[in-house]
Amino acid sequence: MKGRTMAELKVGDFAEHTKTISESDVYLFAGITGDLNPAHINAVEAEKGMFKGRIAHGMLSAGLVSAVLGMQLPGPGTIYMSQTLKFTAPVKFGDTITARAEVIDRNVDRNRITLKTTCTNQAGKVVLDGEALAMPPKE
Amino acid sequence: MKGRTMAELKVGDFAEHTKTISESDVYLFAGITGDLNPAHINAVEAEKGMFKGRIAHGMLSAGLVSAVLGMQLPGPGTIYMSQTLKFTAPVKFGDTITARAEVIDRNVDRNRITLKTTCTNQAGKVVLDGEALAMPPKE
Amino acid sequence: MKGRTMAELKVGDFAEHTKTISESDVYLFAGITGDLNPAHINAVEAEKGMFKGRIAHGMLSAGLVSAVLGMQLPGPGTIYMSQTLKFTAPVKFGDTITARAEVIDRNVDRNRITLKTTCTNQAGKVVLDGEALAMPPKE
Amino acid sequence: MKGRTMAELKVGDFAEHTKTISESDVYLFAGITGDLNPAHINAVEAEKGMFKGRIAHGMLSAGLVSAVLGMQLPGPGTIYMSQTLKFTAPVKFGDTITARAEVIDRNVDRNRITLKTTCTNQAGKVVLDGEALAMPPKE
Repeated sequence: MKGRTMAELKVGDFAEHTKTISESDVYLFAGITGDLNPAHINAVEAEKGMFKGRIAHGMLSAGLVSAVLGMQLPGPGTIYMSQTLKFTAPVKFGDTITARAEVIDRNVDRNRITLKTTCTNQAGKVVLDGEALAMPPKE
Repeated sequence: MKGRTMAELKVGDFAEHTKTISESDVYLFAGITGDLNPAHINAVEAEKGMFKGRIAHGMLSAGLVSAVLGMQLPGPGTIYMSQTLKFTAPVKFGDTITARAEVIDRNVDRNRITLKTTCTNQAGKVVLDGEALAMPPKE
Repeated sequence: MKGRTMAELKVGDFAEHTKTISESDVYLFAGITGDLNPAHINAVEAEKGMFKGRIAHGMLSAGLVSAVLGMQLPGPGTIYMSQTLKFTAPVKFGDTITARAEVIDRNVDRNRITLKTTCTNQAGKVVLDGEALAMPPKE
Repeated sequence: MKGRTMAELKVGDFAEHTKTISESDVYLFAGITGDLNPAHINAVEAEKGMFKGRIAHGMLSAGLVSAVLGMQLPGPGTIYMSQTLKFTAPVKFGDTITARAEVIDRNVDRNRITLKTTCTNQAGKVVLDGEALAMPPKE
């Protein structure tokens, strides 16, 4: 149940988590967070808007990134320190999103790794881009 | 149903959204995102860890920030461009978190605002800190 | 799978449905309906208020009444026509609520029954009171 | 975080809350309330019935009315006293429902307001009609 330690990580290591985003994912996310923006829960209004339909919360995709770090790379025991997020394209209901994290830097002295984090849809379009800083679990 | 336009926003404007984070919030968030890290859903393991109990996902607090932007400031019609997040303290089940966004810069020519975004717990401790960049709705 | 027809119903017939109202019931109800009133989801604020803590939505208790009509009396096939609701006392998290419906009038010609509908907590206090009008399933 | 007081309310004031009702809304509502009537959760049975498909619980629409009162008019601090509900048309999965509350009477001496409350679908058809009585928050 413990993730990888610094010694078990190297630059270029990566992991992914893929999910098709459902209406119920978005509706539950709206309910949990209170983000009931019409773009997410009002089909009539959203169809008039620039995305021609309801879209998922950007932060839901960010949650998939969090899943990669918390479950796989480095995995359980990781301390999530910071994250940058650029929302580069909308996620529609039914889109299949792949969150990917890849180690791009290791600071062995301070026990910190930097990961490039992206979410990509089924067409290969990047919908979320950024970097994470995390402390891998100790020995 | 439309949020505030650039002309209706000024530096210093702020809005808040407060929620007591429940076990069910964290469990649903885990289910939606797939972040089933034991820190969030395994009480036995979590009690042995550094936070002495299960904690909420950092990205759940980030979702409360998203709610402030999407619902209030600027509100519906906003395009969320980017967000930086520093996870500065754990959120325990039952903590009451206030997400706050405050306008700190306006770029009228490009229709972009920068907001300082924080989440604070019931004791006044900052648990999440960062900045958001967003495009307010047009006239 | 069909409920009772008019011929199978008489004045005085009643049915009940009991549930202990959990935090997760209230939180999901808030998320579904968008009623994120601090009285329901903000423990700090609610403790300062007149009920000394978070309370359930009145309409959640009304949902338990709906369950009695839809599941038992008259049951599947019923057309729910109207309902009056008096919210007479708060429902706290952890309260055990019994919804009860009792037939108080039958209009055979128009196939309509009137039911007295109440919700009572574990201390016997009525928290919701009213009347329902419904059309039982046909033969 | 406080709603409008009597002094801030006048006859004709109104507020709205719109949501596209999803299958997950109805399923969660069914789970919370225990109203597992086949009309809501059994597509095979419901398609044989008079509405030609599964429909939402009438009380779910009533929950949207509750959201308008609790969040906007009068808003936080309101005491919800009573509500009448006429279920005038079915709500199908995917319907976009607008709950609206409008102040139609003020009793300043007793600090009570009466609101006309309706839910309308995307085609403009009224699906729920009634009146609410509420006490606005005090100064």
